[in-house]
Amino acid sequence: MKDIQIRPATSADFDAMWHIFSAHVSAGETYPFGPEVTRENAQMYWLGNGVTSRVATLGERVLGMYRVVPNQTGRGGHVANASYMVSPAAQGVGVGRLLGEHSLDEARSQGYLAMQFNYVVSTNTAAVMLWKKLGFSIVGTLPKAFRHKRLGFVDAYVMYQLLQDPDHWPTTDE
Amino acid sequence: MKDIQIRPATSADFDAMWHIFSAHVSAGETYPFGPEVTRENAQMYWLGNGVTSRVATLGERVLGMYRVVPNQTGRGGHVANASYMVSPAAQGVGVGRLLGEHSLDEARSQGYLAMQFNYVVSTNTAAVMLWKKLGFSIVGTLPKAFRHKRLGFVDAYVMYQLLQDPDHWPTTDE
Repeated sequence: MKDIQIRPATSADFDAMWHIFSAHVSAGETYPFGPEVTRENAQMYWLGNGVTSRVATLGERVLGMYRVVPNQTGRGGHVANASYMVSPAAQGVGVGRLLGEHSLDEARSQGYLAMQFNYVVSTNTAAVMLWKKLGFSIVGTLPKAFRHKRLGFVDAYVMYQLLQDPDHWPTTDE
Repeated sequence: MKDIQIRPATSADFDAMWHIFSAHVSAGETYPFGPEVTRENAQMYWLGNGVTSRVATLGERVLGMYRVVPNQTGRGGHVANASYMVSPAAQGVGVGRLLGEHSLDEARSQGYLAMQFNYVVSTNTAAVMLWKKLGFSIVGTLPKAFRHKRLGFVDAYVMYQLLQDPDHWPTTDE
């Protein structure tokens, strides 16, 4: 694990990122993206303007990635949203945890007050357990909101954690 | 009330819609949009590709509007999201309720399984009460997720309702 690096993603990483993304899309168990999602859509999602994007690498190999964006515009822009994908070949060795911890540090250092996941598939128990370990709570349950490829309609969770003390958060208003 | 019509919004309505939108933005109590939102952003939001957009009118006057879009792509595309705005000059006479009922019928007729609101400001009690009357439940609470112009950080709610029986919803998979 100590040789895994996390660094900013660049367009040179995108072939590897697209490969990981496509594996998740065809599994149909973790993210809403359907088979209609194009490479261009994915590139916007991971490397578009305003997206903080990081890859976990071992030597030349990309093992996984995350992105952090504001979850809402304007009056909701103090809450971060993040997404994570780990290569199927690198699952179960702690890459998700490294990405998760790194993304929380990143969001904190960018000054976000909180982080929200809008759509954690309830049957993705490894992810739910990991996010709880990293300080997230389930703050909402969306009945039948995800159409799982094998299981049909399943619930999705909204997960959330405060990253800083709201009473000491610097705020200005127009 | 019986003279109020609800019909598809067109670009000819956009001056009136922008006026209503701008009033909500400057109040800063209901929607996340900050003062940086441009007229072009608002036009995409209300009249962009794939957006179902309706206005409530009384004669020539636009009293309010709603939009319906899929809340997620692909495997989450069976859940609708909707947004509503009523002109400050037309508040308290039931326009919101008309728009809400119409949008639920619209979403049902488009075949959506459920409708989700991602971000109902908790202090907007008139809206929360109305959505409950129309069948929504609070399924999640997002602590301090909205920066209210007068009140500072306040919670936002996720609200949700099933529109059809999931067991009889036509589904296909790739």
